[in-house]
Amino acid sequence: MGATRRLADFAVQSAFDKLPPEVIRESKRCILNYLGVALGAAHHQAVRLLIETLDELGGRSQATILGRGRRYSAAGAALINGAMSHVLDYDDTHLPTVIHPTGPVLSAALATAEWKGLSGRDLIEALAIGMEVELRVGSAVYPSHYDAGWHITGTAGTFGAAAAVGKLLRLDEEQMVHALGLAGTQAAGLREMFGSMAKALHVGKAASNGLLSAMLAGRGFTASTEVLEGRRGFCAVTASEYNLERATVGLGDEYLLLQNGIKPYACGVVTHPTIDGVRRLRDRFRLKPGDVLEIEAKVHPLVRELTGKKSPRTGLEGKFSIYFCAAIALIEGNARESQFTDEKVSRPDVVAMMDRVRAHVEPGILEDQAVVSIHTLDGRELVERVRAATGTPDNPMPDDKLLEKYMDLATKLLTTGQAEQLAEQVGHMETVEELSGMIALTIPGRRRRPS
Amino acid sequence: MGATRRLADFAVQSAFDKLPPEVIRESKRCILNYLGVALGAAHHQAVRLLIETLDELGGRSQATILGRGRRYSAAGAALINGAMSHVLDYDDTHLPTVIHPTGPVLSAALATAEWKGLSGRDLIEALAIGMEVELRVGSAVYPSHYDAGWHITGTAGTFGAAAAVGKLLRLDEEQMVHALGLAGTQAAGLREMFGSMAKALHVGKAASNGLLSAMLAGRGFTASTEVLEGRRGFCAVTASEYNLERATVGLGDEYLLLQNGIKPYACGVVTHPTIDGVRRLRDRFRLKPGDVLEIEAKVHPLVRELTGKKSPRTGLEGKFSIYFCAAIALIEGNARESQFTDEKVSRPDVVAMMDRVRAHVEPGILEDQAVVSIHTLDGRELVERVRAATGTPDNPMPDDKLLEKYMDLATKLLTTGQAEQLAEQVGHMETVEELSGMIALTIPGRRRRPS
Repeated sequence: MGATRRLADFAVQSAFDKLPPEVIRESKRCILNYLGVALGAAHHQAVRLLIETLDELGGRSQATILGRGRRYSAAGAALINGAMSHVLDYDDTHLPTVIHPTGPVLSAALATAEWKGLSGRDLIEALAIGMEVELRVGSAVYPSHYDAGWHITGTAGTFGAAAAVGKLLRLDEEQMVHALGLAGTQAAGLREMFGSMAKALHVGKAASNGLLSAMLAGRGFTASTEVLEGRRGFCAVTASEYNLERATVGLGDEYLLLQNGIKPYACGVVTHPTIDGVRRLRDRFRLKPGDVLEIEAKVHPLVRELTGKKSPRTGLEGKFSIYFCAAIALIEGNARESQFTDEKVSRPDVVAMMDRVRAHVEPGILEDQAVVSIHTLDGRELVERVRAATGTPDNPMPDDKLLEKYMDLATKLLTTGQAEQLAEQVGHMETVEELSGMIALTIPGRRRRPS
Repeated sequence: MGATRRLADFAVQSAFDKLPPEVIRESKRCILNYLGVALGAAHHQAVRLLIETLDELGGRSQATILGRGRRYSAAGAALINGAMSHVLDYDDTHLPTVIHPTGPVLSAALATAEWKGLSGRDLIEALAIGMEVELRVGSAVYPSHYDAGWHITGTAGTFGAAAAVGKLLRLDEEQMVHALGLAGTQAAGLREMFGSMAKALHVGKAASNGLLSAMLAGRGFTASTEVLEGRRGFCAVTASEYNLERATVGLGDEYLLLQNGIKPYACGVVTHPTIDGVRRLRDRFRLKPGDVLEIEAKVHPLVRELTGKKSPRTGLEGKFSIYFCAAIALIEGNARESQFTDEKVSRPDVVAMMDRVRAHVEPGILEDQAVVSIHTLDGRELVERVRAATGTPDNPMPDDKLLEKYMDLATKLLTTGQAEQLAEQVGHMETVEELSGMIALTIPGRRRRPS
């Protein structure tokens, strides 16, 4: 059985009852984190432009735009919610593939589950399965696929969204094979777009294209049945080297989702170890900006490649500048959404601090590690070795910190009480019979209907 | 100025009045051919499944599904009409890039023009400009992009559709740059899908994704401004070798559209020289199936690569079998839509003739050439050297043959009178003030409204 069919078989055969408890737990953490990062971006300009555009095109009223309450077709809601979940660059990251797994899959699954009146249990099942398919495809082609310039969340995410929606629509194995084929042939997203709104669009398109793939396959629309292993298939075409064994080894026993990490900081994940290091030194030595002569970070090569912007001009660009991230972490002690504003990147004291940041690539330093040295004006060299950044498998974000992050974002839009109610629903989502009540809680002013 | 901006500048600055008359003439021929191949497929199963799926999702009533009269959002109509125009594999081909240029661009432009109440002149302008952008992008990355496994009509077509819709929506240069960026980052389509319905989906998605790109860019949605030349841009990511000079050299003076060819046969374009050769020998020597011992074709390597199916099981697979194409051309004297049926590929006399077909790759033979030798049972070897297949720039399809092809397809759905009326409207399209009347003529039973 080829890799495509094995993944399809896994998706069709898996069920909520067979999922390990820690996968269910992690899925719910992903959902809470997703709701936070989406609600924090519900009024972002990119989201507004997408909504205006889809308003022009119209669609049935099937699924809700999170935080806003307008309803669109399932495909439209998947598109908008997907972009919303990624636009702050604050969503989760599976570091071994740098995929942000929840956005494409949950955006498609949530829209479908709402549309079809499905349960919280159905949603968790579809999300866990979809993310596993997504991460398996990504693992097969990483790193050469990513190195070539593909935004792997956009590409692998399309497979995951198709599998999740296919699961919710109860596709059979043959239909699931075609759904994966249709997903693979629509998979897209160039890293060249990083720093523009198009990056978030990739996640929305992965969600809506995956959803369309499953809907079409469910009706009998055909694709190649060997999208992964075929000679002109996804792997051969988009990766100079790939390993299909990684797509299937241990499938159903080991869940790659358990290596997922939740971002504590609202910026490129590769900057996180450096931010951790700066914050620890700042707290331990009660450093003030005026104390600092130089911040030196020894980092993994991807840090310079992905976040090498020396002079960011906008808050968004600041998220892809190791210089700004380190500087603002030193000045303000954090790197949350409120740190990445257009005003802050150009503030004179911040610019002055950025000039004092150096980032050196050092062999042997992994992606979730950094060695941060702060040289003080009074001649000290303070060193912090970060072995596993916060939000990585070896140092996962604790539940209370995740809740704190979620509340910080959700209360931009909702009252504390409503945000807490929503978090509580996510906490026992497997008992939620119908998701519409939970989704209504994302909308300012809505109350959970008595049930 | 980089290639992306130069193409954007070309698209914004060009206008109907500056188009050479032969480009306008060829554009109208493309429209007529498109209407024929679309109407001939209006009730194809792939089209029906797409319509059913979009029915579920809904959308505003903005643009018409050709031949059927239902109206969808402009994006939905672009998707369905795009797939419809390619599903017979009978649309036009720009042989130097093997792009089928009209489908993605016209599907997006026609939906937009109908929605916005624009004129035939506007449509021709947008089509000619969009196809030029599409062919320029394709020329920059061909052949390595195609060799890698990309369905170049799906990928380059997305750029063309974005440029055409951007022209109709009157984007400025900056917006057009972003529209091309958004197009490039959605561009997709794997050759692995050839032989399945997904191949036609590529054309529909190129049209609808291109349309979405232009709509978003018109509102200020941003992309990278260097989608073609960027280090992680479309060319670098999807082609091991590319030449951006080909995207811009002679731009506005030379139109690549003039190298476009219109398919006389309803199958893979690389089979056409062989079919020409078989038909000529059949006619000249009045050959009957019982006369033939062997049909031997010396061909370009792509023939075996793209149409190497030895035992096609369906009419669709027959379109990608040089063996079936040669056999049916010998038996029935043509290779039109009515030759590619499931019944014919498995008919015993056809299967027996397919066993007598040999295809050899011979160095020096170009894609539009073949040398066909028929060995007869009575010991003759009849040889035909095809120097330029019918429907290629050196041997273009004459207007009367094009009309014949169009009528053959359109009258599957329309009365002869209505099909002729529609062709006549295309003939003087530049004087058509509003396209809705012309589009209504594609629907069985509709009459042109008196004007």
